Amino acid sequence: MRMGKGVEAALHCCLVMHWLDGRPVTSAQLAEFFDLPPAYLQKTLRALVADGLAEAVRGQSGGFTLARSGASISLMDVVAAVEGREPAFHCEEIRLAGRSGTLGPRSGQCAIAHAMNRAELTYRAALAAQSIADLADQTGPGVRARTIAALT
Amino acid sequence: MRMGKGVEAALHCCLVMHWLDGRPVTSAQLAEFFDLPPAYLQKTLRALVADGLAEAVRGQSGGFTLARSGASISLMDVVAAVEGREPAFHCEEIRLAGRSGTLGPRSGQCAIAHAMNRAELTYRAALAAQSIADLADQTGPGVRARTIAALT
Ligand code: FES
Ligand code: FES
Repeated sequence: MRMGKGVEAALHCCLVMHWLDGRPVTSAQLAEFFDLPPAYLQKTLRALVADGLAEAVRGQSGGFTLARSGASISLMDVVAAVEGREPAFHCEEIRLAGRSGTLGPRSGQCAIAHAMNRAELTYRAALAAQSIADLADQTGPGVRARTIAALT
Repeated sequence: MRMGKGVEAALHCCLVMHWLDGRPVTSAQLAEFFDLPPAYLQKTLRALVADGLAEAVRGQSGGFTLARSGASISLMDVVAAVEGREPAFHCEEIRLAGRSGTLGPRSGQCAIAHAMNRAELTYRAALAAQSIADLADQTGPGVRARTIAALT
């Protein structure tokens, strides 16, 4: 079970946009900043836009900004935008396949699926409980100041 | 972020082996029982054996059994055996790449990596807190009895 690399890039871009506080940053700037392929970063930013986390500002000094406050964007929002909302564990009801499926009626959800989904919910809740603004608070002020200086 | 289908199969096989309580079941029986490709199921069972969760009993009435009690095998054990122990979120230290990497020293772990890892730990803890025996307790006794009858 792996998340794509896009999650790390997306979270760092959100942190940068949070710090830039409404000043647009281009995907080319972000690509250079993190030494990532421009097309890759563009795809990541488009995923954030599609989910209403970032927005594209058009025009000469255009670029991307957060679409809402960093305090209202959770890690879960970013993971869902980049990785989708499918659960990691997907029950295909194998208990109802083959000979197992002939063993008579089952009441309710499979205990295995239930347990796996419940565990996954704790994960999602932990990701939802932390915001981009929280991450910013946990990062040294020097890094913040130097990031802003490098990108404006 | 997706787990492979092998996790569902592995968990159901562990539940069956727990119910069979030491009586070996062959991978061909399990494949038929769940209507899964035999080679696929064999690979899944081998992963359980490799991690010390199941063992292969040789001989005429051989097959697979759990290698230890179902109460001592957690969902996390099974997920780790099938999916590996790599964290879902893998930090590639992109903060140290490109221009970002030139912005001066960073103290400690990246706040993003720390937050992602902490959330994932809650997931692993929730998976580790539930055992195969717990799942068995949550499954109707009729299913247990009919499964044993079908496979012995
Ligand atoms: S039938 Fe899917 S997890 Fe049990
Ligand atoms: S450098 Fe990897 S998550 Fe921040």
